[in-house]
Amino acid sequence: MRFDIISLFPETIENYCSVSILKRVFEKKQAELYLHDLKNYGIGKYKKVDDKPFGGGTGQILRPEPIFEAHKAIKKLDNYKTIVLCANGQILKQPFIRNNLVNLSQIIIICGRYEGIDQRVIDYLADYSISLGNYVLTGGEIGAMTIIDSVCRLLPEVFTKGSEVTNKDSFSDEKGEELESAQYTRPREYLNMKVPDILLNGNHSEIEKWRKIIKKH
Amino acid sequence: MRFDIISLFPETIENYCSVSILKRVFEKKQAELYLHDLKNYGIGKYKKVDDKPFGGGTGQILRPEPIFEAHKAIKKLDNYKTIVLCANGQILKQPFIRNNLVNLSQIIIICGRYEGIDQRVIDYLADYSISLGNYVLTGGEIGAMTIIDSVCRLLPEVFTKGSEVTNKDSFSDEKGEELESAQYTRPREYLNMKVPDILLNGNHSEIEKWRKIIKKH
Repeated sequence: MRFDIISLFPETIENYCSVSILKRVFEKKQAELYLHDLKNYGIGKYKKVDDKPFGGGTGQILRPEPIFEAHKAIKKLDNYKTIVLCANGQILKQPFIRNNLVNLSQIIIICGRYEGIDQRVIDYLADYSISLGNYVLTGGEIGAMTIIDSVCRLLPEVFTKGSEVTNKDSFSDEKGEELESAQYTRPREYLNMKVPDILLNGNHSEIEKWRKIIKKH
Repeated sequence: MRFDIISLFPETIENYCSVSILKRVFEKKQAELYLHDLKNYGIGKYKKVDDKPFGGGTGQILRPEPIFEAHKAIKKLDNYKTIVLCANGQILKQPFIRNNLVNLSQIIIICGRYEGIDQRVIDYLADYSISLGNYVLTGGEIGAMTIIDSVCRLLPEVFTKGSEVTNKDSFSDEKGEELESAQYTRPREYLNMKVPDILLNGNHSEIEKWRKIIKKH
């Protein structure tokens, strides 16, 4: 999997991808990360990337030309899709990640900033326009991290040993609604708070039953 | 607003908060950010923070003691709440951010990692247990960035000039369902793609009508 990210603040994404599981993924070349600084494609001497909205309104909108130029400059693999992160995109869900993203060879992500992106970017460049949820952020960088993170942990070459982890995790059903049950680890008792007895008795069919009940709770 | 984040990878959050609007917020002390590295509260010589799940299962679970110790060490202000980020928490929505978070004096955020957090942390420390959406991430750090970002842009001291920005933005209604309309900026025409004429004619009541129709589209 190759990720190409167009962003005004690519360093935030680079930093997030340099720790823990993602660090290992990119070091082992189980995936590749290419960051494209939108400022490099800005217009004129001041590398302008934004302007006022037509029709009135507050804030600045990202202009189309720098984004189209940055997108054009990216080397495309056979099986790529372009995602634009914006507040009114479709809400990201686990089944979409599993069914539409993990099998691609390349994901190009365009991060919005300020008050939004010129609609022509969404209409002409985006295969998918995506929002993380019903909340507002100052930019799309968190969305890019979310897509990279959620896709990488499902790549077949990642978690080779613990592949159960990704098959049994929360939200992995088609409806995207199944929850993980409550989980406990050592110590058995801490500050008078105890691990439920059922988890300690080694009766696995009882434990499975309990976990299903706890999930519904 | 004071943020206290308990995380195994606090540097990723620090980095995200050091650019753009958040950089300005923290530099101007419109909010304060305190990062607490969970590894500092690890157990024994190897600073162990996780262990296997009771009752069987793959992956590692964050143990309760380091998190309780880290939480205890944080200076508490009068009006604080503790958020645990975990996959089976309530889904974050803009009205919750506006109504329950922005008015606090302090938000303590506990980031999960690996296969999850010992349930006693959620049961005894969390005022809110929160998930970003129906998708799975390798940790809660992206969630912490999301909460910091979405709360900071709504703080009364931020956006003093452009306060309309935050009042009129996407998802700001109670249902959390209202979408932003399509937005356009210069140039009027780019690669044969034109800005809709209606936005250029200066008739503001027509523009408002068009924007409402586009929202529903």
